Amino acid sequence: MERRKFMKAAGLAGVAGTAAAASSFPKPAIAQDRIEFAMVTTWPRDFPGLGTGAQRFAARLDEMSEGRIKVEYFAAGERVGAFDSFDEVASGNAQGYHAAEYYWKGKHPGWAYFTAVPFGLTYTEMNAWIRFGGGQELWDELAAEFDLKGLMCGNTGVQMGGWFNKEINTADDLKGLKMRIPGLGGDVMAKLGASPVSLPGGQIYENLVSGAIDATEWVGPWNDQVMKFFEAAKFYYYPGMHEPGSMLAVGLNASFWGGLSKSDQLMIEAAASMENDVMMSEYNAKNGAALAELINNQGVELRQFSDEIYDSFGKASDEVFAEVVAHSDLARRIHESFLKAREEVGGWTNISDQAYVLQRNRVLGL
Amino acid sequence: MERRKFMKAAGLAGVAGTAAAASSFPKPAIAQDRIEFAMVTTWPRDFPGLGTGAQRFAARLDEMSEGRIKVEYFAAGERVGAFDSFDEVASGNAQGYHAAEYYWKGKHPGWAYFTAVPFGLTYTEMNAWIRFGGGQELWDELAAEFDLKGLMCGNTGVQMGGWFNKEINTADDLKGLKMRIPGLGGDVMAKLGASPVSLPGGQIYENLVSGAIDATEWVGPWNDQVMKFFEAAKFYYYPGMHEPGSMLAVGLNASFWGGLSKSDQLMIEAAASMENDVMMSEYNAKNGAALAELINNQGVELRQFSDEIYDSFGKASDEVFAEVVAHSDLARRIHESFLKAREEVGGWTNISDQAYVLQRNRVLGL
Repeated sequence: MERRKFMKAAGLAGVAGTAAAASSFPKPAIAQDRIEFAMVTTWPRDFPGLGTGAQRFAARLDEMSEGRIKVEYFAAGERVGAFDSFDEVASGNAQGYHAAEYYWKGKHPGWAYFTAVPFGLTYTEMNAWIRFGGGQELWDELAAEFDLKGLMCGNTGVQMGGWFNKEINTADDLKGLKMRIPGLGGDVMAKLGASPVSLPGGQIYENLVSGAIDATEWVGPWNDQVMKFFEAAKFYYYPGMHEPGSMLAVGLNASFWGGLSKSDQLMIEAAASMENDVMMSEYNAKNGAALAELINNQGVELRQFSDEIYDSFGKASDEVFAEVVAHSDLARRIHESFLKAREEVGGWTNISDQAYVLQRNRVLGL
Repeated sequence: MERRKFMKAAGLAGVAGTAAAASSFPKPAIAQDRIEFAMVTTWPRDFPGLGTGAQRFAARLDEMSEGRIKVEYFAAGERVGAFDSFDEVASGNAQGYHAAEYYWKGKHPGWAYFTAVPFGLTYTEMNAWIRFGGGQELWDELAAEFDLKGLMCGNTGVQMGGWFNKEINTADDLKGLKMRIPGLGGDVMAKLGASPVSLPGGQIYENLVSGAIDATEWVGPWNDQVMKFFEAAKFYYYPGMHEPGSMLAVGLNASFWGGLSKSDQLMIEAAASMENDVMMSEYNAKNGAALAELINNQGVELRQFSDEIYDSFGKASDEVFAEVVAHSDLARRIHESFLKAREEVGGWTNISDQAYVLQRNRVLGL
């Protein structure tokens, strides 16, 4: 078969992996090392934070390598639908995706832990678990089952609890509530008698306005402001128990990743790691001002979930986790590693950030 | 002058900047792009966290560039003394240092803000300020006055308040205390009647054992355990008001930095940014276990500073800041930018990490 036909038949035309791997023909020196990297994502183009962060990662990698690693970026729907990103990369049709790994929890519940789980880890705790607590190794094991390799590449930080059209004073007020909330957080809400609904971002507003749903969570003030939820629901609750530090990821096709040189792997890892922190920094820098704007100019009522409600969330989370652990040996090992990190690193958070910020903000009146 | 003699006269032999910049002679293609990067540091070789993190950054950069950016790493004293690192790089004798910028506060008080100041920013808040709150721009302005360019490259997180040989129940107990505590934190202690002492790490233990000092701060459990301070002082206080998220930095000679291609600049920035997060992750992963070990096996008594003491710290910090602001226009602008970030991002921390961890750890009994 001619090379051109082979490339087309394999669905590789224009989106091949390393040029070196895709053909054994000799090449001009200039192109010898060139790597085509098609990247599909789960975000609309230019969506603040999630989308712009993924785009920034793609541009950075291109620039760092002086165009040698040629990233072709596809927003959701530009090449495949958002949730088809996984199969597109696992199959080798594209080289990588940028997404939240918990979108794949239907394939294996372990994926949820590599974005966020209820009562889970904050940004700094998650990084400690992934880098030094065995998290990356378990993520690698899970991803390998699907011919993938995952890298940290962004974080939203602690998310808000959600938008409600009435006050939520006790856990009983959640009963019968139709709420858009995905992932294990939705399962927790179901245990408490709510009806969790899964809706893509673009359909939430209309459902909230029409009354088809009573409540929704999304991300935090900076992102939520753009969605105009305040027009249909005035009560904005914090803190969210369901996504305390949602990590975004670059998922790479395992053969593509394995075929890269050590230095190219490291370059991709460093570019992704930088985005991990840049995206988090942007959310932290912009959420405060957006929240003030929502409260002062849009009539939003900020409310804090009570201790009693948090106790109920905690109990329901334990029930949800018991179901996850029963899934498989790997799910159990991921959960146990997560629990260990939460106890050790989470305990240290009490003594460090938590104790310090409490005193600083008390003294300063922040 | 012959090239060899010029190189020697300029003190550049063996530690030249970009090979391309150091000579106009044509070179073999293979070496055309090769960059010699001598890096001096303020850390003993293999010192956990600070030293190993700086070494990891150097190795990463070398490997990412496939040895094209050739980093020659010098621990403190191997080429120049720790605190001579600044002049070595500002003068162009070496291309970069890894250090804590507050070591240079004698040259300009603004440097302190790019490590940590009393009642300052935590890790995530610092990153938000540097990346999206105008921090990097002010750092660049300050560094340019000394022919330098700074990049974030590590963090210790919230430090402990210190080791004391008696209980500190009120601010009065600090009076007359000889304590090793550098930077603006030491100035705060002086306002409260203590006598701050500046000692390099290697001399703290002997001074504490001999009674020449009554107290010392260092970093946190993982680092402090190595120093064996528990043999001379049993009371270990938290949280430290003086270094709530000490950022480490790579300082680069400005001409060296300016002579690099955009892609090489980005490669150095990404490698440094990755280390920023890797080092923080390592401290967070290891501090908890080290603290448990100190308490359970070394008889260390963990104590929390009282509200009254923190109120006194706050008042004294304001007095110290007033002196900093009076130094120069740039010092004032750095301080005002920092204040704005502390209010905006610090306020958001209340709603996000602070509120979430409080509830999570309460429910879980962590």
